[in-house]
Amino acid sequence: MNDLIFLDHGSTSPCDPRVVEAMNPYFTEIYGNPSSHLHAQGNQASQAVDGARSDVAALVGLAKGQVVFTSGATEANNLALLGLPSAKDPERKHVLVSQIEHYSVVNTLDMLKAHGYTVEELPVDKNGVVTPEILKSRLRSDTALVSVMHANAEVGTIQPIAELAALVRETGAFFHTDATASAGLLPLRMSEWGIDAVTLSAHNFYGPKGVGALVLAEGVRPKPRSYGGWQEFGLRCGTENVPGIVGMAAAARLALAEKAEWAERQALLGRKLWKGLEEKISFIHFTGHPTDRLPGHVSFWVEHVEGESLILFLNSKNIMAASGSACGSNLKAADEDELVASHVLDAVGVPSDICAGSVTFFIGKDTTEAHIDFVLQEFSPIVERLLQMSPTYHDYLKSQKNG
Amino acid sequence: MNDLIFLDHGSTSPCDPRVVEAMNPYFTEIYGNPSSHLHAQGNQASQAVDGARSDVAALVGLAKGQVVFTSGATEANNLALLGLPSAKDPERKHVLVSQIEHYSVVNTLDMLKAHGYTVEELPVDKNGVVTPEILKSRLRSDTALVSVMHANAEVGTIQPIAELAALVRETGAFFHTDATASAGLLPLRMSEWGIDAVTLSAHNFYGPKGVGALVLAEGVRPKPRSYGGWQEFGLRCGTENVPGIVGMAAAARLALAEKAEWAERQALLGRKLWKGLEEKISFIHFTGHPTDRLPGHVSFWVEHVEGESLILFLNSKNIMAASGSACGSNLKAADEDELVASHVLDAVGVPSDICAGSVTFFIGKDTTEAHIDFVLQEFSPIVERLLQMSPTYHDYLKSQKNG
Repeated sequence: MNDLIFLDHGSTSPCDPRVVEAMNPYFTEIYGNPSSHLHAQGNQASQAVDGARSDVAALVGLAKGQVVFTSGATEANNLALLGLPSAKDPERKHVLVSQIEHYSVVNTLDMLKAHGYTVEELPVDKNGVVTPEILKSRLRSDTALVSVMHANAEVGTIQPIAELAALVRETGAFFHTDATASAGLLPLRMSEWGIDAVTLSAHNFYGPKGVGALVLAEGVRPKPRSYGGWQEFGLRCGTENVPGIVGMAAAARLALAEKAEWAERQALLGRKLWKGLEEKISFIHFTGHPTDRLPGHVSFWVEHVEGESLILFLNSKNIMAASGSACGSNLKAADEDELVASHVLDAVGVPSDICAGSVTFFIGKDTTEAHIDFVLQEFSPIVERLLQMSPTYHDYLKSQKNG
Repeated sequence: MNDLIFLDHGSTSPCDPRVVEAMNPYFTEIYGNPSSHLHAQGNQASQAVDGARSDVAALVGLAKGQVVFTSGATEANNLALLGLPSAKDPERKHVLVSQIEHYSVVNTLDMLKAHGYTVEELPVDKNGVVTPEILKSRLRSDTALVSVMHANAEVGTIQPIAELAALVRETGAFFHTDATASAGLLPLRMSEWGIDAVTLSAHNFYGPKGVGALVLAEGVRPKPRSYGGWQEFGLRCGTENVPGIVGMAAAARLALAEKAEWAERQALLGRKLWKGLEEKISFIHFTGHPTDRLPGHVSFWVEHVEGESLILFLNSKNIMAASGSACGSNLKAADEDELVASHVLDAVGVPSDICAGSVTFFIGKDTTEAHIDFVLQEFSPIVERLLQMSPTYHDYLKSQKNG
């Protein structure tokens, strides 16, 4: 097969060509700075940015509030986690985040602690779910913020966001959800469900890299983290990334119109892939929730086989997948993912002592059935080859003989 | 004239079509996440980002060090101002910035003060220059950071950066310069001049919006302000804006090759414009340094006439220019520039009491002589019309008669 089979849609996705088309005029024709609104160029740019807010708001079901454009999900998560707690009553000094959040949430927690907050991690069950019961037992009258992602890109699990939001609402805390992995696939009804803040990343739903948003319910105003001009309602400074914002809006429109169709196709292919792997691979352990998961997301680990080796062998067949953990690898020392065992896998009980890395296949809207057939055809021989190279597998075989 | 005459190159510039061409494959073909370097897509993206660093380093004459890509100049200035002081000896608690810095520098100062720093503003002379003498008199043995922009987009003045850097170097403080307005026009020899950190904004030299850089000399490591993955040497988290970074690198290559030519043409047209205005407009006062200024930058105010009105009338003739101040206007309340008198104009002694706004014409590389002729033809009647509408002008005429 000559196609490049990109099944790493948790890390990024290509721009939809319609998104590129929407952006194009904003590089060379409508190039004004939105702050220079006294002349036609600036004014057109300013109108484009404001128009884009409506499209992004529609994607997450925001009836009243503000879309604050950022450089991506990391900046949006940082703004939510570090900016929202102090926007509540100063007596509220408690913050709850799930155990399986992205690094851009996890790595803000020390800063919150340094500012006098008590931070607690919400544990997940073996399927990676923050259950309403768990949340209820941890919520306090002084909780300022709860942050639980909509879906996890590593293990695929979808959280019961509507229920969690309702519980948080009762206590008067802010509820934030990182929808990076789910936007463009799962519906999110921000106003209806009472969610205060949502993180979005454009490149995760076929928009451009370098742009994201923190979508805020009416009256929710985090303390800004950047200093400069008065762009984005004073919440985020710097000349707006106009083509990026226009591209994000185009991607949001596409997703709103087509996401049900994308999700259905992906779910179908995902089930085929899951079933095929289950039948063919003896030592496979699937991770995340068996059914409440991102459509087209198949994650697992294979006993005795390192995830990274699987990724490299798959790559040699033009199949691109993700490895969620990477024991002992330092192929690129600057990359955190490659240095530490995944806190997500740890949270759902993947044994770290056997040093097995997980593999994530995350199907995209343009993945075909032929791609899945090819993956299923190629995957078994790769696993077989790696098993033959695995010392723990040979130990296992010996123990079987002796036992 | 049917051309749109864009003379607001201080606020932004269009992408060069060659920049767009360079970016294009990175939206739909090479779309991997650089952190996913175990497969070909991620690896190609990672290589593109690393390659881009060399091009950007070359533009500012960095021999050894690091290019840290950001979402733009604001983020880079924030990172420098808030991250560098604490990277020095903790005994150094003094920070110096010029009086005419951008808001993304100015508005960090309260935060520095809150962290125990003494912040002083370096005054400028009537031409907007921070003289070496002024700097020398303010440098202290406990100065941690000095930040003086390379050139000011509002009044055009170029600072004697090499001399200032040499003075700062002697004291052991960091020297940062914001080269947003000058990059792509003026040479900057970071390593040769001993500059520790340089802020760049891609869209100000014909690259895309939404990407910039803080370029750091070897061993200079600001405290990061974002929390998440380990991108950009741990100094700036979040999935890299790969197309934007590639576009910035393409713009840097063009600028390095062509900037001398651009600067020469712009300077020629700028002198023509200056001379023409000087001859035609009676109540004109030019701002900034008469000769040490950005090539093609002509800034001034006209007695009795509001800058914003001039901009609006010019716009009706398809001429786009900038107004540096805006007494009493609240056309767009979210825009700081429109609410407060410019601290830059104030610093160079423009009288705020007569409520005159400045006008900046900043010529670009594609401005033609015909554009300048058209501006000179249209500007006098606009000024004449506004003078007739101006109460202070009528007062002036009366006083002349009576006097």
